Amino acid sequence: MDATVGYQGEAGAYSEEAAALLFPDAALRPYRTLRQVFDDAERGELRAAVVPVENSQAGSINETYDLLGRGGVHIVGEAVIRVDHALLALPGTRLQDLGRISSHPAALAQCQEFLATLEAEVVPVYDTAGAAKRIAAERRTGEAAVASERAAEVYGLEVLARRIQDDPDNFTRFAAVAADPQPLGPPDKTSLVLVTDHRPGALFHALRPFAERQVNLVKLESRPSGSGPWKYRFYLDVEAGPADPGFRAALEDLRGEAAEIQVLGSYPRWREAAGDAGGVEERVTSQ
Amino acid sequence: MDATVGYQGEAGAYSEEAAALLFPDAALRPYRTLRQVFDDAERGELRAAVVPVENSQAGSINETYDLLGRGGVHIVGEAVIRVDHALLALPGTRLQDLGRISSHPAALAQCQEFLATLEAEVVPVYDTAGAAKRIAAERRTGEAAVASERAAEVYGLEVLARRIQDDPDNFTRFAAVAADPQPLGPPDKTSLVLVTDHRPGALFHALRPFAERQVNLVKLESRPSGSGPWKYRFYLDVEAGPADPGFRAALEDLRGEAAEIQVLGSYPRWREAAGDAGGVEERVTSQ
Repeated sequence: MDATVGYQGEAGAYSEEAAALLFPDAALRPYRTLRQVFDDAERGELRAAVVPVENSQAGSINETYDLLGRGGVHIVGEAVIRVDHALLALPGTRLQDLGRISSHPAALAQCQEFLATLEAEVVPVYDTAGAAKRIAAERRTGEAAVASERAAEVYGLEVLARRIQDDPDNFTRFAAVAADPQPLGPPDKTSLVLVTDHRPGALFHALRPFAERQVNLVKLESRPSGSGPWKYRFYLDVEAGPADPGFRAALEDLRGEAAEIQVLGSYPRWREAAGDAGGVEERVTSQ
Repeated sequence: MDATVGYQGEAGAYSEEAAALLFPDAALRPYRTLRQVFDDAERGELRAAVVPVENSQAGSINETYDLLGRGGVHIVGEAVIRVDHALLALPGTRLQDLGRISSHPAALAQCQEFLATLEAEVVPVYDTAGAAKRIAAERRTGEAAVASERAAEVYGLEVLARRIQDDPDNFTRFAAVAADPQPLGPPDKTSLVLVTDHRPGALFHALRPFAERQVNLVKLESRPSGSGPWKYRFYLDVEAGPADPGFRAALEDLRGEAAEIQVLGSYPRWREAAGDAGGVEERVTSQ
């Protein structure tokens, strides 16, 4: 299938790279906000949306989790991208000329140590590639963007510094979400959302079915439930899919423990070992 | 004691309000960044720093959690503040004149629905009150800040709209952190950090000691551990202090289950029921 796949950000964004990996034959469409790309995926106007879920250094992307919690789309695949941030500016700019550094707040957070060495104002904007585009389009002198080297090529900017993130092994995990729940390959990972009762041990008892059946919990994230202050929903990723009888039984037990359960999707887990320095060589089969 | 207490933001920030509640007799000092106010608290140059931990709608403040995880300070108290956001601009500005709305990204996130009704560019900056201050100082016409009504008074701005947050019951929880671990009152709440082994059920087994002894877990947050991609540390808040024998026994058992444990502090929990509409009437005894 080669229908359009959406991503948030401008051309040159890391999300575009993830979308191209997961859907090599699809036309890719940029969106200004995560909410807009989720909306179009939910309405079936896109084959899928590819959205950032989590960065290995900065943590979860809260807005993505909250949009997943709305429940209108299914997770059908995932991809992990190595994120090497670079500092980009108009050709001829020197590091000491910089008065402003702009980028997405998550990218700025990932480069705190490097940025602290520059005496420049740090300006959060909506998108890494968008910051680069604005510098190029408006000929902003004295300003640099934190973005990918690919964005430098796309917008004709010069790379002043490479791999400026605090942690050299910096990865972002993306999810492909779609109105159609059909996974991009044989599913061996599942994401779900739990709301627990408000009693001592509720979360403990909700995790029991997985622990007892040796189903590996690889991620647990809490977010406000939206049903009142200090009430949470928990997002769980487990390394099992619907073909696994232990997982199916655990899910059945869980229905007795949790106040609310929502399966966000079962999908093939990304095969790249995220700690590998070798970059992305293999990829999930897309249909 | 009346030594100085620090907070992040400009005068009129919600953090300043929380600091004044917890330390009514202290001189208050604004800081540009959370990192700077943590640093000064850690060095003992401040009696304490009052920092935002969590918003009831937008969730945890990741940077605060990461700075707590460094371990140089202890949590000695907490406070919950009702957060009513207002839209502030130069006197005489009308809603339809607005081309830009600036504020802290968390405040912008809390007012998404209202902001979507305006056809204005949304600009993230470092601080709610700082956005208000900049509009006043630079006479920025056509721009409004999302900040507290108090900030309007401080900077001589006009309130164009009140209580613009999506959720009318919007609260932020703050922690007082200090180099000296002495709590601000009798401690009945404890925050701790766990690193679990990387094996199935590890988190489940780490929660068991609390569940078995009826110690109520009121918050669980995961953050990247900093020791490699997709490894996490878990931040737990439990409703118990060191005077509780069940809690002490649970902590002892936990040392056998978790790879690493760090107690961030035991302190008096905030007595206001966060869901009350009545605002803050009672407060933690400060020394």
